[in-house]
Amino acid sequence: MSGPIRVAVLTVSDRCSRGEAVDTSGPGLCAMAVERLGAEVAATAVVPDEVEAIGAKFVEWSRPEHRIDLIVSTGGTGLAPRDVTPEAAKRVFEREHAGLMELARMRCYAKTARTYLSRGVAGTIGRTLILTLPGSPRGSSENFEALLDILPHAVETIRGEVQDDGRAGAKAVSGKVIEHND
Amino acid sequence: MSGPIRVAVLTVSDRCSRGEAVDTSGPGLCAMAVERLGAEVAATAVVPDEVEAIGAKFVEWSRPEHRIDLIVSTGGTGLAPRDVTPEAAKRVFEREHAGLMELARMRCYAKTARTYLSRGVAGTIGRTLILTLPGSPRGSSENFEALLDILPHAVETIRGEVQDDGRAGAKAVSGKVIEHND
Amino acid sequence: MSGPIRVAVLTVSDRCSRGEAVDTSGPGLCAMAVERLGAEVAATAVVPDEVEAIGAKFVEWSRPEHRIDLIVSTGGTGLAPRDVTPEAAKRVFEREHAGLMELARMRCYAKTARTYLSRGVAGTIGRTLILTLPGSPRGSSENFEALLDILPHAVETIRGEVQDDGRAGAKAVSGKVIEHND
Repeated sequence: MSGPIRVAVLTVSDRCSRGEAVDTSGPGLCAMAVERLGAEVAATAVVPDEVEAIGAKFVEWSRPEHRIDLIVSTGGTGLAPRDVTPEAAKRVFEREHAGLMELARMRCYAKTARTYLSRGVAGTIGRTLILTLPGSPRGSSENFEALLDILPHAVETIRGEVQDDGRAGAKAVSGKVIEHND
Repeated sequence: MSGPIRVAVLTVSDRCSRGEAVDTSGPGLCAMAVERLGAEVAATAVVPDEVEAIGAKFVEWSRPEHRIDLIVSTGGTGLAPRDVTPEAAKRVFEREHAGLMELARMRCYAKTARTYLSRGVAGTIGRTLILTLPGSPRGSSENFEALLDILPHAVETIRGEVQDDGRAGAKAVSGKVIEHND
Repeated sequence: MSGPIRVAVLTVSDRCSRGEAVDTSGPGLCAMAVERLGAEVAATAVVPDEVEAIGAKFVEWSRPEHRIDLIVSTGGTGLAPRDVTPEAAKRVFEREHAGLMELARMRCYAKTARTYLSRGVAGTIGRTLILTLPGSPRGSSENFEALLDILPHAVETIRGEVQDDGRAGAKAVSGKVIEHND
């Protein structure tokens, strides 16, 4: 990879944003990103459970000048009346990613079936991948953990450093390029 | 939980709506809801495979005055030319729920791979959760069965009785609230 | 089934469309369709990674006069900056199908977790089912292979030859029809 993964972590919580609760999920995700992915934490923020505030952060952090590869949010993915993180994300995604949260839920299922109560979605804006994880320290870290092995490849692909679909790039064969021939 | 789950069951079938076929799937789901969830059946109806008729029932039953926690439909989720229940549902959902029908299909897969031919979706309007299940007696009951263990928690969450993401609520610690600290 | 499955295969690749790379994924899918499904190949084409070009082919091939049951595309489903096949597909789908690519990913997971990096989606236009598979020869053939057992039933259903949800059709019982009673 051409440089460390640059990560931003968004905590979505009414109470944390008002200072009425201490956010431990966001710092936990930052620590995992640094320790497990060798990532740089480019930004963190705490916003209330409001569609506009959440979407604005996703859009701001996806601007090319920030060179942020991965935005991870924590909170607002459940069924509680104020949970709207997936709705905020889907409004601003340029490309939705069906598979990533499917994989996270499938892998977390061994620990608890309740992981399927999460409505988390993934998608992209420009060259930034966005994951919306649950709000609890355990739920957020288990879901992030479930994706750690494939995130480096995802980032290389979205940066344009490898060909699509997780396969090795083109090889020149007798003057022509054979795509994805692995 | 603050009271029994209130359920409404919608049968979506051209033939049942014209009296040309006997609906056994809807009554089967009502019985399961009562026996397995201790639920109250607040309403039942039969509508044809028409986007407008299906969506109108979802919207009507989700009005706050009915206090319906859960709407379960049966029928119209497959690939037959007239199957439009997911389209009707997605038009009126305020929040879509990716995980629930993923879980139902994954659990029903042990019995038949054909469960993945169902296009069923889940979502919410206000404080009402909506599931769109297949039309056959076996497919509808197997899919409902697959979700019975997590539905009580889903309902508690959408009612606002517990914090988000299936984790225990906040605890007061030295004057501050630590969110989701389980 | 009332006749062989009619398939069309669309290769989505900038380089193949410019003649800079040799497409082996498309011909591989054609061969599998013929050998494993007894299908007729009604059409093939190569288009660049452009939303308009991809969507136009899906729409053209779904016209009733072509009687194409199944369109399979290969390419453009990953996270590379130019990958837009799912976006093109979702714009023209009349009905999206959540379950089919879920099943493909789940079954391919035994070989590689990277299968979940594919953003592939499925859906219908008229009586034509559309699957968007990865671009590599291995990824496209493994995903197609994963669905071969249920595709004949899917086609029978979308043609209207069987009742919905993968269950046997209606049986006449004492003058009334009992739906899906298997």
